Amino acid sequence: MGSEITKEFLENIELLISGKKNKALLKLLSEEHPADIAEILGDLGSDDATYLFKLLDSELSAEALLEIDEDDREKILKNLSAVEIAVELDELDTDDAADIISELPEERVTEVISEIEDDDHAKDIVELLRYEEGTAGSLMAKELVKVKETWTIPTCVRKMRSQAQEVRRVHSIYVVDKANHLIGRLSLKDLLVASTKDNVSNIYIPKVDSVHVNDKGEDVARLMQKYDLEAIPVVDDDNVLIGRITIDDIVDLIKEEAEKDYQMAAGITEDIDADDSIWDKTKARLPWLILGLVGGLAAASIMGGFEEALTKYPVLFFFTPLIAAMAGNVGVQSSAIIVQGLANDNLKGSLVNRMFKEIGLSMVNGIILSAFVFIFGFFLGYEIHISITIAISLIIVIILASLVGTFVPLILHKNGIDPAVATGPFITTCNDIFGISIFFYIAKLILGF
Amino acid sequence: MGSEITKEFLENIELLISGKKNKALLKLLSEEHPADIAEILGDLGSDDATYLFKLLDSELSAEALLEIDEDDREKILKNLSAVEIAVELDELDTDDAADIISELPEERVTEVISEIEDDDHAKDIVELLRYEEGTAGSLMAKELVKVKETWTIPTCVRKMRSQAQEVRRVHSIYVVDKANHLIGRLSLKDLLVASTKDNVSNIYIPKVDSVHVNDKGEDVARLMQKYDLEAIPVVDDDNVLIGRITIDDIVDLIKEEAEKDYQMAAGITEDIDADDSIWDKTKARLPWLILGLVGGLAAASIMGGFEEALTKYPVLFFFTPLIAAMAGNVGVQSSAIIVQGLANDNLKGSLVNRMFKEIGLSMVNGIILSAFVFIFGFFLGYEIHISITIAISLIIVIILASLVGTFVPLILHKNGIDPAVATGPFITTCNDIFGISIFFYIAKLILGF
Repeated sequence: MGSEITKEFLENIELLISGKKNKALLKLLSEEHPADIAEILGDLGSDDATYLFKLLDSELSAEALLEIDEDDREKILKNLSAVEIAVELDELDTDDAADIISELPEERVTEVISEIEDDDHAKDIVELLRYEEGTAGSLMAKELVKVKETWTIPTCVRKMRSQAQEVRRVHSIYVVDKANHLIGRLSLKDLLVASTKDNVSNIYIPKVDSVHVNDKGEDVARLMQKYDLEAIPVVDDDNVLIGRITIDDIVDLIKEEAEKDYQMAAGITEDIDADDSIWDKTKARLPWLILGLVGGLAAASIMGGFEEALTKYPVLFFFTPLIAAMAGNVGVQSSAIIVQGLANDNLKGSLVNRMFKEIGLSMVNGIILSAFVFIFGFFLGYEIHISITIAISLIIVIILASLVGTFVPLILHKNGIDPAVATGPFITTCNDIFGISIFFYIAKLILGF
Repeated sequence: MGSEITKEFLENIELLISGKKNKALLKLLSEEHPADIAEILGDLGSDDATYLFKLLDSELSAEALLEIDEDDREKILKNLSAVEIAVELDELDTDDAADIISELPEERVTEVISEIEDDDHAKDIVELLRYEEGTAGSLMAKELVKVKETWTIPTCVRKMRSQAQEVRRVHSIYVVDKANHLIGRLSLKDLLVASTKDNVSNIYIPKVDSVHVNDKGEDVARLMQKYDLEAIPVVDDDNVLIGRITIDDIVDLIKEEAEKDYQMAAGITEDIDADDSIWDKTKARLPWLILGLVGGLAAASIMGGFEEALTKYPVLFFFTPLIAAMAGNVGVQSSAIIVQGLANDNLKGSLVNRMFKEIGLSMVNGIILSAFVFIFGFFLGYEIHISITIAISLIIVIILASLVGTFVPLILHKNGIDPAVATGPFITTCNDIFGISIFFYIAKLILGF
């Protein structure tokens, strides 16, 4: 398994840096994976990290730069000259280089690009920077192995050798016609078992999945996951092959999306870690808490309007947290199911059907839960019409809360808003207010205060 | 992009099946990807699905069987004989075959295995079935391409050709010594650019990441993601190469884990879809709702104990949903950050440090939120000591709620329980009860009722 960076190891490195023991440092780190070097760089102070970074071989340092957290990367990049950054980018694939450049302050971007030695590499990076974030274009790399259908196998292998030196990992080999239109793929396996007398056109597979450069990243992820693809070619409007997306970037995307949804459901707006500063965390958390507070104040006002019931039916007021909690929980459950269904693109059936199903489900749950309330009320000696009031309200609140939880994310999605914002605090707060209002109106209706 | 299965397309297929138009069916489906065939099979009734399944070429049907939902798969498998199932499994990689077999009723397992034609394949599957679910062993496939260090490149390519025919996708090529110990890997790229005079021992990379057969799946996922690996070899206690895990299985694992955590946070215990039956949904949702109900009943009892404050300070009772909501929201936020930190293995710093940070953060949030309460109270003409009571309670409740949210998942994790169960309803319910108790005790202290 991967090595853990221990505190002792880190202290040792800091000691070597302060003593400028370059040879010992390089020896110690030569066996480490770039991802581990990235972790070490992230744990070091800005000066130490920069010192170590400059010391490392540019192949290793460039990979490490890629793996490091965005915050830590900024810490190092601001200490590097444009030339030094360009050297790192020269080592990286175009997509990774473009990702790093896009994090630089605008005024440095042109300067850094002009310093990249390989002109084609620079041109490719500039092209990638043009694509909108979240599209297939922004995820793809320009590096790929492509062969012409007219080539013989020996030509193909010879040409591929030089292409392969540019490409970090060879996945499928794409087959294009003279005008660079994507027409198929060649599997490495077929190439391994092909005879030298074969021609590319004899052995290539004419069916190849591809995505358009403007397709959304999530759709690409879904497609690659569904078809178990490890790389997918990207084409433009004319079906010209312009890049490829590899699964490692998709894994990161899936992970990020999942984390974003999870944080959103928990009421955290920005991507934060457990070890971020209090200020960063407050920025991410406070807005949702304020929303919750406003909901609570609204609930307090509503209850204030029913003050006349206070002396006659105090029990009603004891049950408001229960009503609010149930409305919130049911709403979050319903919305989570819809949000996942939308994300996986597996919602079938009509809206009316869905509505009746939710109502049915809520009735079942509501009746079971109301039975508990009844039993509880019996043992505490509540008047029967109080128990009935609470039970009926609970059933109705659950039904309405589940409908809110179901349809709010659907409506948001239809209007192009990420439905995940609806789960968590938003639904909970709405349903709190909603639930308490309904509860008191029904109580008034039944008990007539 | 991938083709969508339209309603018309499905009706057409049903029509063809009922007319037993086999040729037309095969023609229509020959161009479809197995994942799309799987979707079609899932949408058809049990009899139609079985008919279509048996009609398809076993290579295609086996792949489709793999891609289909577990429920739908069961629907087809129960209509197949042991021999028919064995034919499908013969087409699949060992890991996929083992996954499908493990879903069969126990009494059929031995029967199906005995019908698998390729004895080695059957033996490999039986081996995989031995590994505990969730371990590297249960995720790996026996199919891989391995070469001996002593081979020359031409021998290596020749041997690989025959191995490659067995393996769906060639990733890295593993290098072993005479006793099958994993000693390195050969990248396809290096092989492409190697000269025929080279020897495997000259060009192989001696550093290779591997996992132990008993390592946990999540750890394997983390490692592969960190190091951007597309396949990883699996070794036993003696470092003997026994299998490999590919990224497509890891993508599924990451996705499943994320969905499970998300559902758990929303109070849903079992993996359910939007279109599952009311009964399945009730089973997944009701337990958490009952938990919430018990919390609400407990809160009602607590408030009942403070009935004497009802006439003098009714406002306190209006604020219980607010206190409960804030305690719940803060707790969920804190626990979500910890759960993600644990999942990504990036929690650093000591517990004491974390505690002080949470208290600091909560004080900041609490003071800002209390200010809102004050302003609200001012406009509604609350007595000043009521506003003070609510404000102080709110700050203390937020601090305690965030500590509960932070430490409950940490404690669960330390005791080997999935900390994700702590987020959502569990933390919310605890903090509801907790928050309301503290609120009334503080009120009693300050207001002296």
